[in-house]
Amino acid sequence: MTASAEAVTLRDRIEEGNQEALRRLVQADPILVDVAPAGEVVEGLSGRMILHSGPPISWERMCGAQRGSVLGLVLFEGWATDLDEAERLVAGGGVRLEPNHHHHGVGPMAGTTSPSLPVWVVENRAFGNRAYCRPTDAAQQFGDYSDGALGGIRHWRDVRAPTVGAAIRKLGGLPLKPLLVKALAMGDELHNRPNAFSSLIGNALAPVLVEADVPHDALVQTLWWLSKDEFFGLGVSMAAAKASVEPAEGVEYSTMVTAMARNGTEFGIRVSGLPDQWFTAPAPTIDGLYLPGYSAADAGLDMGDSAITETVGWGGFVLGGAPGILALVGGTPEQAMEISRSMRSITLTLSPDYRMPVFGFEGSAVGIDIRKVVRTGILPRIDTAIAHRDPGHPKIGGGLVRAPLECFTGALRAFGARYEAR
Amino acid sequence: MTASAEAVTLRDRIEEGNQEALRRLVQADPILVDVAPAGEVVEGLSGRMILHSGPPISWERMCGAQRGSVLGLVLFEGWATDLDEAERLVAGGGVRLEPNHHHHGVGPMAGTTSPSLPVWVVENRAFGNRAYCRPTDAAQQFGDYSDGALGGIRHWRDVRAPTVGAAIRKLGGLPLKPLLVKALAMGDELHNRPNAFSSLIGNALAPVLVEADVPHDALVQTLWWLSKDEFFGLGVSMAAAKASVEPAEGVEYSTMVTAMARNGTEFGIRVSGLPDQWFTAPAPTIDGLYLPGYSAADAGLDMGDSAITETVGWGGFVLGGAPGILALVGGTPEQAMEISRSMRSITLTLSPDYRMPVFGFEGSAVGIDIRKVVRTGILPRIDTAIAHRDPGHPKIGGGLVRAPLECFTGALRAFGARYEAR
Repeated sequence: MTASAEAVTLRDRIEEGNQEALRRLVQADPILVDVAPAGEVVEGLSGRMILHSGPPISWERMCGAQRGSVLGLVLFEGWATDLDEAERLVAGGGVRLEPNHHHHGVGPMAGTTSPSLPVWVVENRAFGNRAYCRPTDAAQQFGDYSDGALGGIRHWRDVRAPTVGAAIRKLGGLPLKPLLVKALAMGDELHNRPNAFSSLIGNALAPVLVEADVPHDALVQTLWWLSKDEFFGLGVSMAAAKASVEPAEGVEYSTMVTAMARNGTEFGIRVSGLPDQWFTAPAPTIDGLYLPGYSAADAGLDMGDSAITETVGWGGFVLGGAPGILALVGGTPEQAMEISRSMRSITLTLSPDYRMPVFGFEGSAVGIDIRKVVRTGILPRIDTAIAHRDPGHPKIGGGLVRAPLECFTGALRAFGARYEAR
Repeated sequence: MTASAEAVTLRDRIEEGNQEALRRLVQADPILVDVAPAGEVVEGLSGRMILHSGPPISWERMCGAQRGSVLGLVLFEGWATDLDEAERLVAGGGVRLEPNHHHHGVGPMAGTTSPSLPVWVVENRAFGNRAYCRPTDAAQQFGDYSDGALGGIRHWRDVRAPTVGAAIRKLGGLPLKPLLVKALAMGDELHNRPNAFSSLIGNALAPVLVEADVPHDALVQTLWWLSKDEFFGLGVSMAAAKASVEPAEGVEYSTMVTAMARNGTEFGIRVSGLPDQWFTAPAPTIDGLYLPGYSAADAGLDMGDSAITETVGWGGFVLGGAPGILALVGGTPEQAMEISRSMRSITLTLSPDYRMPVFGFEGSAVGIDIRKVVRTGILPRIDTAIAHRDPGHPKIGGGLVRAPLECFTGALRAFGARYEAR
């Protein structure tokens, strides 16, 4: 962008566009409205089709964990009876592969979503749009296609999802903003540490589950699950984040990031004023801690749509308020505070709702501006888990990663090409 | 204590005594085993008798809030039909008043406990002792004797307590240590902010409640209560603290504090090596924030057995990990950290179990040493709520208070008198 009189006008227009994009993001009112099979609620997901995390990618270029996860879902759907058959089917083009983000959805890690798999459904009541996220687990979404891993998502499909779905529908929807706000004051960063959010959702659903008309066995099993699984809230926070940011997509002149997503091969971002485009770079390696028996030599590259939480100002952006997470990802409380503080240099504002007690109740940094990232060289910090480089493994660790600068410089070039000529 | 060869021996014996007292405190394994009417489970509580918080005190010297709370329980028990009759009965000596602490119990704020009122029962499985705590509420325990306030504890007696009690007994007890540890990583200090602990207990009890044989209406009402009341966990954490520290009472030569308690008139402490004695000083004023409609002019003095949480290293001792509380009590996150850090100067060790993520997972400061308090002049910092100076009001605020130095100098003098001569 030049320093001419024209450029001042462009800057004004960018300011105006960003204010509008921010207004939409900040006004979001995410409500958990359903849990239902993806094939019934996700627009355009039908037939032999599997959605995945990150920008678009072909089967041939997919990383090991995502391939393993796709194969697992082919078996789960019954499109093949064994792994070889599944692989032949997918390699032969018999299963359509598309990003979750192209279908108003997100998915953790491999992010694989197939028609029978029930997803969390969050409606943004301020704008009427809906977003989806598949359930989290520590195996199948990491590329593990074992019977145990598939048993987990079958149990979700057959027992937990219909039960929780019935309760949510009976309740008429669970407003998430109050719970997200509370969770941020309870040591969550709503990405790698959704523990309090999970706990609060469990509290809120328990009485409704009992009042809903569900079989007693399924009720008891579901209540035990809600009581034990500290991580299930991530699927809800991801859907809430996606539902919150989608109305801010496609605002002319806005330089605000509306998605950061990784498929384990590439890291991609999307920008409000550059709709339907991905700006990609090779997926980065993760700086983290490994579960017993695994090391950095086993690690795949950064993967998952879960960076949607950082996109709306959670995750690494509020890491300083979630020191409990450091047992999983490493680092000191002081470093965590510094990371969250530094994100203010690349964002447009502080959230009026999502506040951090540890920063004296100031809002989290929200609205990543591609210009600020390029100008400062400060890269968005993302909390993440680590999958194996090969198919067939469960979760192997957790850590922190930086979004690649190349995504932001690429987006800024495209922005200039689109808007400077006007 | 003199600097002679004898004094070295005394110091050695104190060291030995404190190590033994600490060992007992640290080994505590608190299990929530029941909720039952106080008259059935609290040793020595029978007939027309009401237990109260703090050191012993006569009706005449009781503060307004504690008098109001006693009168409320006289009505609750049906020992009088109106307030005047209740007051005549108590003033005429018709109701025996004794401290909770003399009956293995504790109570928040006025702490009033009468035979029909169900209490939380926590067993310390490492030593076999049990401790009790009445339920928290924002009205009756603050001295409010209105129909609304009494309705709250009647509902507890008739619906919640029997229902939760049935679930806990069916479960065979709920181990609290894992939940306390988690809550400390979720922004709780387990005194003024027991939100995460409440939430986790709610999660843990929900499936058992459904499996227990309780009436459907009571089940649904109780689940809603567990889901909405963020404060009920305080009664459990107080009983857990009391059960944890009681085995450390009565260790010869130990200078470790085993209780800090206030009745709104006096602040009292007890010391391991000086069993059955109270060392008192006038109750201090509270530095805090007030609910709308109230000010410092309305405030009573410091009150409640809840400082049992600080006695075992929670509350103000872990304030730095609970910045969410500052909206209630005032101050900055930096001040909260500094308060928790300074408590290390007056304690014997850091807890191996109750760790603070914000201090890089170092343990909370535990085992207050009367010698260190007197030597440094650093006073235990206690989170607290504020009651009205007059009877008949609900909660009016929250804040922070310092234990009076006089209690510790008095205890140290008594310690010298008892042990130096030997």
